[in-house]
Amino acid sequence: MDEITQTMQLMGQRARQASRETARATTDQKNKALLATADALIPRRPQILAANQKDLEAGQAKGLDAAMLDRLELNEARFQSMLEGLQQVASLPDPIGEINGLRYRPSGIQVGQMRVPLGVIGIIYESRPNVTIEAASLCLKSGNAAILRGGSESIHSNQAIAACLKIGLQEAGISENAIQVVETTDRAAVGALITMPEYVDVIVPRGGKGLIERISGEARIPVIKHLDGICHVYIDDKADLDKAFKVTLNAKTQRYGTCNTLETLLVAEGVAAQILPRLAQAFDEKQVELRGCEKTCALLDGIKSATSEDWDTEYLAPILAIKIVADLDEAIIHINTHGSAHTDSIITEDYSRSRRFITEVDSSSVMVNTSTRFADGFEYGLGAEIGISTDKIHARGPVGLEGLTSQKYVVLGDGHIRQ
Amino acid sequence: MDEITQTMQLMGQRARQASRETARATTDQKNKALLATADALIPRRPQILAANQKDLEAGQAKGLDAAMLDRLELNEARFQSMLEGLQQVASLPDPIGEINGLRYRPSGIQVGQMRVPLGVIGIIYESRPNVTIEAASLCLKSGNAAILRGGSESIHSNQAIAACLKIGLQEAGISENAIQVVETTDRAAVGALITMPEYVDVIVPRGGKGLIERISGEARIPVIKHLDGICHVYIDDKADLDKAFKVTLNAKTQRYGTCNTLETLLVAEGVAAQILPRLAQAFDEKQVELRGCEKTCALLDGIKSATSEDWDTEYLAPILAIKIVADLDEAIIHINTHGSAHTDSIITEDYSRSRRFITEVDSSSVMVNTSTRFADGFEYGLGAEIGISTDKIHARGPVGLEGLTSQKYVVLGDGHIRQ
Repeated sequence: MDEITQTMQLMGQRARQASRETARATTDQKNKALLATADALIPRRPQILAANQKDLEAGQAKGLDAAMLDRLELNEARFQSMLEGLQQVASLPDPIGEINGLRYRPSGIQVGQMRVPLGVIGIIYESRPNVTIEAASLCLKSGNAAILRGGSESIHSNQAIAACLKIGLQEAGISENAIQVVETTDRAAVGALITMPEYVDVIVPRGGKGLIERISGEARIPVIKHLDGICHVYIDDKADLDKAFKVTLNAKTQRYGTCNTLETLLVAEGVAAQILPRLAQAFDEKQVELRGCEKTCALLDGIKSATSEDWDTEYLAPILAIKIVADLDEAIIHINTHGSAHTDSIITEDYSRSRRFITEVDSSSVMVNTSTRFADGFEYGLGAEIGISTDKIHARGPVGLEGLTSQKYVVLGDGHIRQ
Repeated sequence: MDEITQTMQLMGQRARQASRETARATTDQKNKALLATADALIPRRPQILAANQKDLEAGQAKGLDAAMLDRLELNEARFQSMLEGLQQVASLPDPIGEINGLRYRPSGIQVGQMRVPLGVIGIIYESRPNVTIEAASLCLKSGNAAILRGGSESIHSNQAIAACLKIGLQEAGISENAIQVVETTDRAAVGALITMPEYVDVIVPRGGKGLIERISGEARIPVIKHLDGICHVYIDDKADLDKAFKVTLNAKTQRYGTCNTLETLLVAEGVAAQILPRLAQAFDEKQVELRGCEKTCALLDGIKSATSEDWDTEYLAPILAIKIVADLDEAIIHINTHGSAHTDSIITEDYSRSRRFITEVDSSSVMVNTSTRFADGFEYGLGAEIGISTDKIHARGPVGLEGLTSQKYVVLGDGHIRQ
């Protein structure tokens, strides 16, 4: 076994051991650890920002692009939001230990389900140091131990933050192995982390599609993941066109780079001539490039023709694909075929069509008369999120504390035996 | 692409297509399909039993052992229980479409979660023809399409049963591709089935540990599985010894070959001398072989010494390992180290120890003063089960209809946009 694998196995053993402690840590202990971490961060701000400066300089020297450098930067606002994040997660209700549906069975035993941590969670993310605090706080509050592996460009920032996490855990009397930050920047560490099911129960990769596909392909452990966000709005011919205009514009332009941003607009043939020119003008003002199907191009002068590739593309940019469809049936088939099972919305005033859309569109969030931009853990009331899952088993959609837990059966008897 | 892979891909495509139909099938349609299958089975009993006879003869010629031949046999009782199973699943409440927790958020949107099918389920099982009906009925009632791959020795029985399933689906107006039985006995079919995530959403392997380990190792799709059932009873020194006696005997001897049967008995040192001789005598009467730790052997004359391997063994036989432990702490450590996270029970009258056992033992079922033999879907009130999961994500413990579903978010608005 090579050195990196050995190091990771040792981290895994420690995490497994620590997970027994985090699983039985009291709500008060867990909250104390979170708040004590915030208290440890505050006086160490100069050192942390200096460590981040070191990462930024190395990143510049390495030729990272502007977007990567932006994500790597820990400015005042991000430092502040790390502190607020810790306080906010501390204020969330503790999901662990909740027993649901404890009911007597005809045999006389009482059966219910208790919410429990998953165990050890491996988080793999890009060079975004604030994610270290975000991921650590969610794992800890949900009673899990975590192994965090941030991008190698953020190594100094992450180590400085990890030191504060250790202090927080110590103050709360929880093993400092409950949250471990991988110190090596060797990529082999990721390979080891995702192939030790004896120590790690689930992997949460956060980052670009390439990273997530590689990890899912190689992991020997369940992965909670989000690949694409090819989100749709379908404007039905029974839509209130003012709502349609407002929601479509918001879903595309409120932010361009997020996974719940609208990427393909579907419009019922019956209202296309009424709504599309009005939308096209608004998008033009916002400098959004439109790519239309043949019918759309016939309606809107001078826009680009969409190729078949456009229907399967997550632009994450001011580009929108537009397709005119015959009716709801064609819209549902298009979404279930080309979408990424993330978030899709129908604009309609028709009762039966809204019910059909909700039932038949196979996405993690299905919406009626609502902007797709609402699809996140905060807006849904989860308090925080570790990501948005486009998987089908375990957790779909925004994953908060509950998504990092599972339920075991609790059976209470009084000497009951099976006949 | 070879022929088997092509065949399986085609089945996968058909299943994916059919899963759209099963997902929106009404409760009435699904129940009708189940009951019509039962109605189709009844007059075809002679043909089905003849097909089974053909399988049995081939199995004998092939030299299958008695246990395998027993599982392969479709006798009158098993035929009857297939019919009853169909009626029973038809009578269960439909889990699909249930919307939970639909609440208004401060933004004005209303957010809830709707229970939806997983999509396409691949079931791989041994040569047990009655499982074909069991698996098909649970998948269909939960709105899923299924691809069923039974052991090659049961091929004629399965084909005869599959014909009845087709009739049932037809009568209910559901695509006959909703339940497909793999017709080839080539093992490569399994390899193809577990590596096509584009068509299959989850694999449920049922059978021996070897089969399940191989499938989990090679699958590129999430697997809901159960490996071992190394179940424990811990007799605490605050136990009511009559309950301890009764429960321990039942947990071991009510049936020997089931996964929730007791395999290792842990006894607190303080009560070992009182309870063990009494238990040993009862086990002797039932011809259960005991294998004890050093202290146990000192207490009980003439029993075998346990080796370290015994603590990690699922006997599925009239053999019981016994270990005397100092206290609850040692018991919990032993269970979390050597157990299989299946089902474990404490016998105690002590309030705090019962709470600690429930919280700290990391198994899919944790019990107090109850025989481990209760751990199954029927006893827990699920109505039926597709298996018992010892995994940590998605579903733990007995998996019924709900374990074959997931939840998506439903968001209702009135033209809401994100600020």
